[in-house]
Amino acid sequence: MSNKALITSEFKSLQDEICKEIELADGHGSFHEDLWERSGGGGGRTRVIESNVIEKGGVNFSAVSGKLPENIQKALKVSSSNFFATGVSIVMHPSNPFVPIIHMNVRYFELDSGLYWFGGGIDLTPHYINSDEARFFHQSLKTVCDKLDHSSYSKYKKWADDYFYIPHRKETRGVGGIFFDRINEKSTEFSKEQLFNFVLGVGKTFAPTYTQLINTNKNTPFTEENKEWQYLRRSRYVEFNLVYDKGTKFGLDTDGRTDSILMSMPPLAKWPYNSTPAPNSKEETTIKLLIKNHNWVD
Amino acid sequence: MSNKALITSEFKSLQDEICKEIELADGHGSFHEDLWERSGGGGGRTRVIESNVIEKGGVNFSAVSGKLPENIQKALKVSSSNFFATGVSIVMHPSNPFVPIIHMNVRYFELDSGLYWFGGGIDLTPHYINSDEARFFHQSLKTVCDKLDHSSYSKYKKWADDYFYIPHRKETRGVGGIFFDRINEKSTEFSKEQLFNFVLGVGKTFAPTYTQLINTNKNTPFTEENKEWQYLRRSRYVEFNLVYDKGTKFGLDTDGRTDSILMSMPPLAKWPYNSTPAPNSKEETTIKLLIKNHNWVD
Repeated sequence: MSNKALITSEFKSLQDEICKEIELADGHGSFHEDLWERSGGGGGRTRVIESNVIEKGGVNFSAVSGKLPENIQKALKVSSSNFFATGVSIVMHPSNPFVPIIHMNVRYFELDSGLYWFGGGIDLTPHYINSDEARFFHQSLKTVCDKLDHSSYSKYKKWADDYFYIPHRKETRGVGGIFFDRINEKSTEFSKEQLFNFVLGVGKTFAPTYTQLINTNKNTPFTEENKEWQYLRRSRYVEFNLVYDKGTKFGLDTDGRTDSILMSMPPLAKWPYNSTPAPNSKEETTIKLLIKNHNWVD
Repeated sequence: MSNKALITSEFKSLQDEICKEIELADGHGSFHEDLWERSGGGGGRTRVIESNVIEKGGVNFSAVSGKLPENIQKALKVSSSNFFATGVSIVMHPSNPFVPIIHMNVRYFELDSGLYWFGGGIDLTPHYINSDEARFFHQSLKTVCDKLDHSSYSKYKKWADDYFYIPHRKETRGVGGIFFDRINEKSTEFSKEQLFNFVLGVGKTFAPTYTQLINTNKNTPFTEENKEWQYLRRSRYVEFNLVYDKGTKFGLDTDGRTDSILMSMPPLAKWPYNSTPAPNSKEETTIKLLIKNHNWVD
């Protein structure tokens, strides 16, 4: 039942809904839309907000199809020449350093051979880690995963810990979240419909979870030092996305729309040389929590 | 005659000389030195200046040795387990948008099998391209190359055009320069001593060439728009270094000292969404010159 027309339509609605909720939480700005077409087939709706509360954020929808280049067939270890892919991708860089950066992605991929899979995830990157908020965030994700079964949260949480990691900094990107790729009825015990409902559930948990974090923190007072720290944390975000992120690499390698792929870049980032937080500072406390395998919920 | 002790000592002197000249041109700041040791063998002297004229610049010397990891033997297509490598690496991010960003690297690599090579290059990344200055820069490089022979400049200039290129932006990084790798007596018609003299000549042309560009432009008045454009150009520099630069990738992959490798990152960079320069603006003129195979000197 979960055919590509239905999935595409639900992903479009998800984009609409999320943009509406983010505009409401921002209270000032609105999304600017760029429609684009892919020369090989399909296209997308890139929506970007540059405002007061969300300094820069993108909510992208795309549905593309066509011939799968041979190098990508190889990389994906498949041998089918026609593909269809649709998804929603989000990155938000807030202005207030006490509002965390967030990323969300849900995607569906199919080949004309009939092979398909879903992928996606959400992860949170607070400039300052607030343990209560990290727990609230993970609890929201656990609630969605638990609807699938009782082992998925810990499995996908570990996957996020391993994926959102910056080896050269020996740091996780933030407090993690969930990540999953190439899930289908062969790699899991679930039907396509169950998996689609799960993926859509992940997408739908984004707005209520993130807008709560925005609303709690958007008016929190901050200092110049807090801003400097935010700019430094954003530079680590840049490093992860440009050096390690597979989606970014795939997009750039396949001649995707650069401004849509790199909407994930922060509006402003700083690289001070060899910066080390003061002992026992809030910054040091955050660094010490940028580790894998920290359990935020039981 | 060009043994590793001599090369190491000349590279160290080169670092000293360049730092002195840059401090003189900056007129305010001085380099901060961090000595570091590599657990596998050797170490380096990282020197960073964060000042008025040079907002952030690094002049790094290193001489490292030890076992060559198998994956690197594979990547280099060599089968020798002990290596020695020494070099000087520079990136300068000036404060005034009319002073260009510059990069220089000279390096020597040898294996216990006796195989060795030199590599290196210089390239200039003006935020605003000034054709006279680009010609002056290329003329300096041509003068050094011409001492080797009359075909090296055009060969190494083309190599730089191909190397310092950002495919996803369809732009060169700047006005190029020269680039060469794995040159030795087998891959060229020159002796090791001739090649070493050439490489050292490249290193020695850095300070007089760049300090002239600093001195000409460091007091040029600029506007807020000029600064914004500088921040955007710096973001492209980040993209090149993190996505494509082989030296950066090699450093991060081999667990090098991250703060020394990433001293190339600008102090502050901006990624506005989908920014396009106004028609016939100075910014557009610059973009139009970010192309391969532009001949700056005859």
